[in-house]
Amino acid sequence: MRPVYYLASILALIGGYTHRSAGDELRGFSADGARVERDWETRMRAIPDPARMRESMRLLSAHPHHVGSMHDRQNAEWLLAQFKSFGWDAHIEQFDVLFPTPIERVVELVAPTRFTAKLMEPTVAIDPTSQQHDEQLPTYNAYSADGDVTGRLVYVNYGIPADYEALDRRGISVKGAIVIARYGGSWRGIKPKVAAEHGAIGCLIYSDPADDGYGQGAVFPAGPFRPGDGVQRGSVEDMPTYPGDPLTPGVGAVPGAKRLAIADAKTITTIPVLPLSYADATPLLSALTGPVAPEAWRGGLPLTYRMGPGAAQVHLRVKSDWSLKPLYDVIAMLPGSSEGDQWIIRGNHHDAWVNGADDPISGLVAELEEARALGALVKQGWRPRRTIIYAAWDGEEPGLLGSTEWVETHADSLRQHAVAYLNSDTNERGYLNLEGSHTLETLLNDVAADIVDPETHVSVEQRLRLQHIRFGGPEERAAARSTNALQLGALGSGSDFTPFLQHLGIASLNLGYGGEDNGGVYHSIYDDFYWYSHFADTAFVYGRALAQTAAMAVMRLADADVLPFDFRNLGAVVHRYLGEIEALVTSERDSAVERNRALGENVFGNTNDPRRSMLPPPAQPEVPHPAFAPLHNAADSLTRTADRYERALQLAMARDTAIVDPAGVNQLLLQSERKLTSSAGLPGRPWYVHLLYAPGFYTGYGVKTMPGVREAIEQRQWALADEEILRLAQAVDAEAALIADATAKLARGVNSAPDPRR
Amino acid sequence: MRPVYYLASILALIGGYTHRSAGDELRGFSADGARVERDWETRMRAIPDPARMRESMRLLSAHPHHVGSMHDRQNAEWLLAQFKSFGWDAHIEQFDVLFPTPIERVVELVAPTRFTAKLMEPTVAIDPTSQQHDEQLPTYNAYSADGDVTGRLVYVNYGIPADYEALDRRGISVKGAIVIARYGGSWRGIKPKVAAEHGAIGCLIYSDPADDGYGQGAVFPAGPFRPGDGVQRGSVEDMPTYPGDPLTPGVGAVPGAKRLAIADAKTITTIPVLPLSYADATPLLSALTGPVAPEAWRGGLPLTYRMGPGAAQVHLRVKSDWSLKPLYDVIAMLPGSSEGDQWIIRGNHHDAWVNGADDPISGLVAELEEARALGALVKQGWRPRRTIIYAAWDGEEPGLLGSTEWVETHADSLRQHAVAYLNSDTNERGYLNLEGSHTLETLLNDVAADIVDPETHVSVEQRLRLQHIRFGGPEERAAARSTNALQLGALGSGSDFTPFLQHLGIASLNLGYGGEDNGGVYHSIYDDFYWYSHFADTAFVYGRALAQTAAMAVMRLADADVLPFDFRNLGAVVHRYLGEIEALVTSERDSAVERNRALGENVFGNTNDPRRSMLPPPAQPEVPHPAFAPLHNAADSLTRTADRYERALQLAMARDTAIVDPAGVNQLLLQSERKLTSSAGLPGRPWYVHLLYAPGFYTGYGVKTMPGVREAIEQRQWALADEEILRLAQAVDAEAALIADATAKLARGVNSAPDPRR
Repeated sequence: MRPVYYLASILALIGGYTHRSAGDELRGFSADGARVERDWETRMRAIPDPARMRESMRLLSAHPHHVGSMHDRQNAEWLLAQFKSFGWDAHIEQFDVLFPTPIERVVELVAPTRFTAKLMEPTVAIDPTSQQHDEQLPTYNAYSADGDVTGRLVYVNYGIPADYEALDRRGISVKGAIVIARYGGSWRGIKPKVAAEHGAIGCLIYSDPADDGYGQGAVFPAGPFRPGDGVQRGSVEDMPTYPGDPLTPGVGAVPGAKRLAIADAKTITTIPVLPLSYADATPLLSALTGPVAPEAWRGGLPLTYRMGPGAAQVHLRVKSDWSLKPLYDVIAMLPGSSEGDQWIIRGNHHDAWVNGADDPISGLVAELEEARALGALVKQGWRPRRTIIYAAWDGEEPGLLGSTEWVETHADSLRQHAVAYLNSDTNERGYLNLEGSHTLETLLNDVAADIVDPETHVSVEQRLRLQHIRFGGPEERAAARSTNALQLGALGSGSDFTPFLQHLGIASLNLGYGGEDNGGVYHSIYDDFYWYSHFADTAFVYGRALAQTAAMAVMRLADADVLPFDFRNLGAVVHRYLGEIEALVTSERDSAVERNRALGENVFGNTNDPRRSMLPPPAQPEVPHPAFAPLHNAADSLTRTADRYERALQLAMARDTAIVDPAGVNQLLLQSERKLTSSAGLPGRPWYVHLLYAPGFYTGYGVKTMPGVREAIEQRQWALADEEILRLAQAVDAEAALIADATAKLARGVNSAPDPRR
Repeated sequence: MRPVYYLASILALIGGYTHRSAGDELRGFSADGARVERDWETRMRAIPDPARMRESMRLLSAHPHHVGSMHDRQNAEWLLAQFKSFGWDAHIEQFDVLFPTPIERVVELVAPTRFTAKLMEPTVAIDPTSQQHDEQLPTYNAYSADGDVTGRLVYVNYGIPADYEALDRRGISVKGAIVIARYGGSWRGIKPKVAAEHGAIGCLIYSDPADDGYGQGAVFPAGPFRPGDGVQRGSVEDMPTYPGDPLTPGVGAVPGAKRLAIADAKTITTIPVLPLSYADATPLLSALTGPVAPEAWRGGLPLTYRMGPGAAQVHLRVKSDWSLKPLYDVIAMLPGSSEGDQWIIRGNHHDAWVNGADDPISGLVAELEEARALGALVKQGWRPRRTIIYAAWDGEEPGLLGSTEWVETHADSLRQHAVAYLNSDTNERGYLNLEGSHTLETLLNDVAADIVDPETHVSVEQRLRLQHIRFGGPEERAAARSTNALQLGALGSGSDFTPFLQHLGIASLNLGYGGEDNGGVYHSIYDDFYWYSHFADTAFVYGRALAQTAAMAVMRLADADVLPFDFRNLGAVVHRYLGEIEALVTSERDSAVERNRALGENVFGNTNDPRRSMLPPPAQPEVPHPAFAPLHNAADSLTRTADRYERALQLAMARDTAIVDPAGVNQLLLQSERKLTSSAGLPGRPWYVHLLYAPGFYTGYGVKTMPGVREAIEQRQWALADEEILRLAQAVDAEAALIADATAKLARGVNSAPDPRR
């Protein structure tokens, strides 16, 4: 009996708490197959080695290794050699992409006083790699337009649309102004996009110490948090429109590819942008006059946050080298034995903004240990049923470049062969991420129940349940105690799963541990081996846990007789998202009615304070009732079909004879996520084809579920909303039809070879 | 037609918004009486003069005028002369009370580095009275125990009981320590009380700039907010036990009164306490180590807030002059004509911590203008039916000393004669306070409908409705649009209504405008004429509005044929408070069950982060079901009786002949609030006799409604809770019986002289 279940059973006795049933069965495996699989898993789990991860991190993060740097290429070559040494068939695939690197950067306060921003992260004596200034990328935001602008300064809080509504109410326009926004509240690329939509001519983004600095704890090197001069680099490419090389949307950036002119690339900002440290931001924010910022806008600097404008004038200059740079994706393969045309793909990026020990090397060194472990199993005789592809992507930081170009290059093959994509990135101490395609919810829960948390020694699945019980609301607590599987979060963007999931419709998971290692070195020169080995998963035991988790998921996907998709969970979330959107419409309608009524009552005029005058908010157009019925019908059909599939699968797996035509069933199943896509893509952004999950057009990394429907409603495009409901209903119907086909195939097997003992 | 109704009608047409019916009827007046009354009110409203208020404020705040100072006495004498010049019968009533003033004050960081706190508010050149250092009381907390202690420092956030639970979870004890708490979250006197209960040996209280300083806006003198060296003085007398002179609980501090020894006075703190500016607090907070404070504990200083302890050692020394000091209450009277043994009492304090232009002179100058106006009406022939008493209290700041000693001295007469007490204190720009006894809810709403807001020129009642619509939740919005009268808030403590309402059971209102003038000079030397005339109600138009509001309420109470109490509102709040308390019990029960279940599941152990270790919270005892039925029955009876009274009153007032025995009805009515008291007082604090409203034992100024019941439940004293429910039910039954008597008296009149036209 394994310790994890032993402990869980004791807890169940003490607390009356319902945990998932333990047992030897494995979804998609026959009883015999499950025994064999568990044996290989046990061997696999013993292999990943924290000491090796530590050494790999030290090596890979020894120098800055951004796209185009010498060490980016050297790391790729070292990774290639590693995969080969583990027995994998590996190669490097190169792409040539537009990746701007800075030539000139100026931020100056020119009135009412003068101040020139340092735009530089200094050496910290105790941290050896922090002095590699000649190799470091300067502090900047990649894909900022070049520009040289001077204008009055306006503080826009997080710089999301609601913040501009608050400015409008106070009669403050950013037209012709340079805005200063703080990091947070949205993905950074949203800030210059929304600023430009409102007429701003430049955008500064700073790290506020309340969110990311001394407000959170001791700053580096005394503690893990962002020091006064620390800067968050990062991409401001308009990834919600399309990620990857701005010049080659939809196609691989290979030699001879048709490239757009830079001026025609839609994902480069229209205004110049630079990031600032809070030391550099302080004189700028101090110079603002105008209304005191609302309480929710105030950060941790010792000053009165004001919205501006006033006498503060800022000069911003950005100029980049816009030449193409090479990407080196490392691709490694273990061929499948019987269903080798079905691919399980696993990836983590290897490029960083600077030294990047945390982001991305902490995830990459786990992936390497998985590759070593799987290679070792092959040497011991393991033969995966399906083909396994491990990738180390280049160019994730600027805009998911390496994964996107690879996916676009191999799109046809991937559509045909890919079963699933498993991503990881930064990995730290704490809880397992539960995020991904809901057809994989059961698989991920099952795996999580078999991995031991290194801090508490209960299963990571159980620890997550207890966390939901501790911090959740009543519904979440009840669910954590009663349901079989914990619900996955939906994927937005922010790492390399996006092209797989959202451009091709490949079922995806994003794996990683975290939540306990807080810090503030994200995208700075201080994200390095010194920082990670002092403040994060210092014993690399969560690195080992990630390697065990991902490898186990890969193995179960690679070896199962029937691919372990579970469509009941998909049915449940389709119902849930639909309910959320209906509630959204109701609340939008109620709030429009209330707003208009209050305007009619002159509520705003008569509660105005003449010393802090505010304009009334604009009247709201009426909110009609979208035609949701087709989507309700499709969702019901999906749930019914998923239940039938489940019964057929259980009957099929309970027989001890082989399933008739398993490859035929699996060929259907691996297409299941594709049915949730539409080749026309989302309105205004055809690159994104998934109708259930997308990054929000105005949130960036944040997911919008049922994005076509939801964003049409949020933007009050009611005719479009009705169209999108229909389109999504058709996709859900098609999914149900595929599941019905798979059910029929399984049932045919059962009927044609009934088990005489039942 | 008066503009207020004209505007309201237009708005009603535009917005479909239901406002209170306009008309000539006045509650408690016959139709003829109402016409006469409205005529006098029109004359009264024209009299209060902003220019005179400005000049009175300049004079009264020209020098520091705290208890025992030369200018405290001079102001009392000037006020006396003013009342006399307005034609009032006035005198000064003196009491001699314990009021400590500081001799020695030391706060020093003695390890790991040394720092001596300045404990001093510097002169601001542009502000002429800020230089009167020889006359100013130093920065201190009155009724702090003397002491000389040295101990390690612990940060306790607001220093309320929940904060100590958070410390306990982290294994941090304050035993033998000096705590530093920030102002806010509770009345200041709670902080040393709770600290001492947990074993602390000293208490520092500082103003955090996020709550009270640059976080809010520009600091004085550039703006109205608290500067770095600004300190909030204030009393830490344990007023929730009893206010007034600590040596004479329950009796007037007159010559020959029996006085406790200082050592026996229960309302002096047990540990030394001093207030700090944020400039003085910064080195202390910076010296703390230990766990990073939870997010809700972090303020606006540029440092990492930590809980402590660590190497930080603090030396705190407080020594006071504990001699008796004189109080000078100014009492002025206009005798009633026909029911002169029924008293309407109105008061505002005149003492301040320093110059006190805002607190309390802004309210006092309005009260003076009311007295001038009422005096002028008398000269024009007005004869109030009842006696009107205007008071200017001394010693409010240290602990409601002047009002409490006067109330205790005249308790028997007041119980017999007092109809109502109307208080005011600080007055600023904005919205009318709606706070007081619920039997006066209709009166206050009616008055507010007849006062024009100086900023928007709608009635202050309508402006409040619109404010509720703008900022309220769905229920509050619906109520603001549909109900006849806006609900009053219940009174806790913090000003001179407490002895009237909560020691004698005299129906009370606390009147004042505010909400738009923010600032940070509360209880500092910068609360002076310069500040008020630059940053607050600079045109004194809200001063005029307060004078009009209070005088109108006084006049209607003084002149009505039948006192304008409305018991329907009282019935409604008794039901509402009971519902709240039942919901509290349910939520306490649910949370105890959940807590204990989670402990059984080892939720806390298995979600612990070893690097930020937290103890599990303690198990909770079971929460039984209190016997609420008697209180439900009493509340129902109250509502029924109130409805019957209302019908009888309407019939009585509709007749055009005089009511039979109005004085008999009114003698009953003026006792109505007394029925809600119990002579035994609240558990553990017999001075407080009101069973519906009291300051919270652990919140201070914050009200606890149904305090006996609610606090027994909060403290999990279940047997006591059942007793308190019964006691309150008996009081509510007695109230219903009184109302039934009054109804019978009114109905007898109607029956004995029926109106032949109906």
